[in-house]
Amino acid sequence: MFAVTILGNNSAIPAFDRHPTSQVVTIDGTNYLVDCGEGTQIQIINYKIRRSKISHIFISHLHGDHYFGLIGLINSFGLLSHQQELHVYGPSPLKEIIELQLKVADTKLCYPLHIHSINGAATLIDTDKLLVKCFPTHHRIECYGFSFTEKKQPRKLLPEKAIAMEIPSLFYDRLKQGEDYLRKDGTLIRNEEVTAAAGPGKTYAYCADTKYDEALLPHIMGADLLYHETTYLDNLRERAESRFHSTTKQAALIAKKAGVKKLLIGHFSSKYDTLEEFEMEAREVFPETELALEGVAYQV
Amino acid sequence: MFAVTILGNNSAIPAFDRHPTSQVVTIDGTNYLVDCGEGTQIQIINYKIRRSKISHIFISHLHGDHYFGLIGLINSFGLLSHQQELHVYGPSPLKEIIELQLKVADTKLCYPLHIHSINGAATLIDTDKLLVKCFPTHHRIECYGFSFTEKKQPRKLLPEKAIAMEIPSLFYDRLKQGEDYLRKDGTLIRNEEVTAAAGPGKTYAYCADTKYDEALLPHIMGADLLYHETTYLDNLRERAESRFHSTTKQAALIAKKAGVKKLLIGHFSSKYDTLEEFEMEAREVFPETELALEGVAYQV
Repeated sequence: MFAVTILGNNSAIPAFDRHPTSQVVTIDGTNYLVDCGEGTQIQIINYKIRRSKISHIFISHLHGDHYFGLIGLINSFGLLSHQQELHVYGPSPLKEIIELQLKVADTKLCYPLHIHSINGAATLIDTDKLLVKCFPTHHRIECYGFSFTEKKQPRKLLPEKAIAMEIPSLFYDRLKQGEDYLRKDGTLIRNEEVTAAAGPGKTYAYCADTKYDEALLPHIMGADLLYHETTYLDNLRERAESRFHSTTKQAALIAKKAGVKKLLIGHFSSKYDTLEEFEMEAREVFPETELALEGVAYQV
Repeated sequence: MFAVTILGNNSAIPAFDRHPTSQVVTIDGTNYLVDCGEGTQIQIINYKIRRSKISHIFISHLHGDHYFGLIGLINSFGLLSHQQELHVYGPSPLKEIIELQLKVADTKLCYPLHIHSINGAATLIDTDKLLVKCFPTHHRIECYGFSFTEKKQPRKLLPEKAIAMEIPSLFYDRLKQGEDYLRKDGTLIRNEEVTAAAGPGKTYAYCADTKYDEALLPHIMGADLLYHETTYLDNLRERAESRFHSTTKQAALIAKKAGVKKLLIGHFSSKYDTLEEFEMEAREVFPETELALEGVAYQV
């Protein structure tokens, strides 16, 4: 499974039962938390997110609606006897803030906490299964987006066919990597005869707070699912510009230019009590748009 | 009106829809916020507390369940164009934490914020209507309680009687201060003949996190309403002791020894899903005990 569950879809001030930004990206049973506004630990309880499966947290920037809930989460993990390492990635002052707050409370965490500072576009995680990158967005202060890409899966072995072709099981791993097999009698067994294609690795790209900026395109091109902020409806384009935010149609235009499969919009201003117009406006430009609604899991 | 509204009654971890510590003390239409756990700004919305009437916030100590919501509140006040000065009182590292978080977000508040450091027992506010003091409690880290005392009200003028006695209106203010009036004909009009007694100034005392400690008594003696933490039921007295917390019966004993009129108990551990036993146990020692329940306003 590769999905994104929305914990908070609002901008700066909590309003209309919408909460500040936080999302959980679930890949193969591991939860990656993206941003952590105030109250995220309560939203995690409300939506039954498995806390023990959170080992990485990504903070886009240091405006409060994206990280004021982090210290509470870190602290509660300690009180709840969290065991695994916790890796937090964010702009460099984050480390000082968190460490200061732990120090004044004389808090000794019972698990290893690693706070990694981000400085410009970079690869944050690169395993044989997953690639996580960060890239700068265009906001009032230093701010990052994140992309999560599943690595190409190995091909799927068709065991009954491999047995029928008398391929030794020691060679199966090489079959999964796409190799053909040459039998001792000189017959070439082509890989496609004994394996099935793997699904392609999918990509989720998260553009945190940003004004409309085509410099984002290389980082999000062709994503299966793109999250892009839409703080305002399109009639407030000037306000969006001045506050380094985007409108519905701007987000939809970026999605279109990036050729993504699907767009998820959020970070709605507290001035709006309903969200229907956000969806309508964005769909005029990019029909495959959905509202990021709290508690909903969107498949990538 | 002099009342205390509970916004959060739980200890460290939010659980069972109970929130970390926060209370609003309302005196003559002004709201004094006492502690500010994560999510307090949302509880303020939920319970329709008038934000614009909050001008003073008192933070007992720097364990997160008592202050992680403060930065969010300060920030949101800015976004909501709060106008008045905001005074925050707390242990000295609080100023550095808040100022660091405002700095990294490049936040310019639109109202004057004053963060006052507490160092030992002190008078924090002393006007002609109100006296607010802080006093140390006995916790794992530096921690304070607060007492709010209405100043003795001026006596109430009985205008029809003052007119009948031919007292000039210029003298009315001195009547309210308790003076007698000597008429030109030599008749002494005793103050009691033309004024009525004012109600006595009442006191609310808030003991934040603390172990059982009779050193608190001088600061809370005779209070009309005492809040004292009861993190645990009385069978966990050893755990309470080791964690610098109190049990039901310990809080009730302090209330009894201090001769207070009424006791309010809170800061319940997240291990308890219901609270009835807290009330039962405390009432065995001090019958005038009530549970601090979220959303309820208790008259002082």
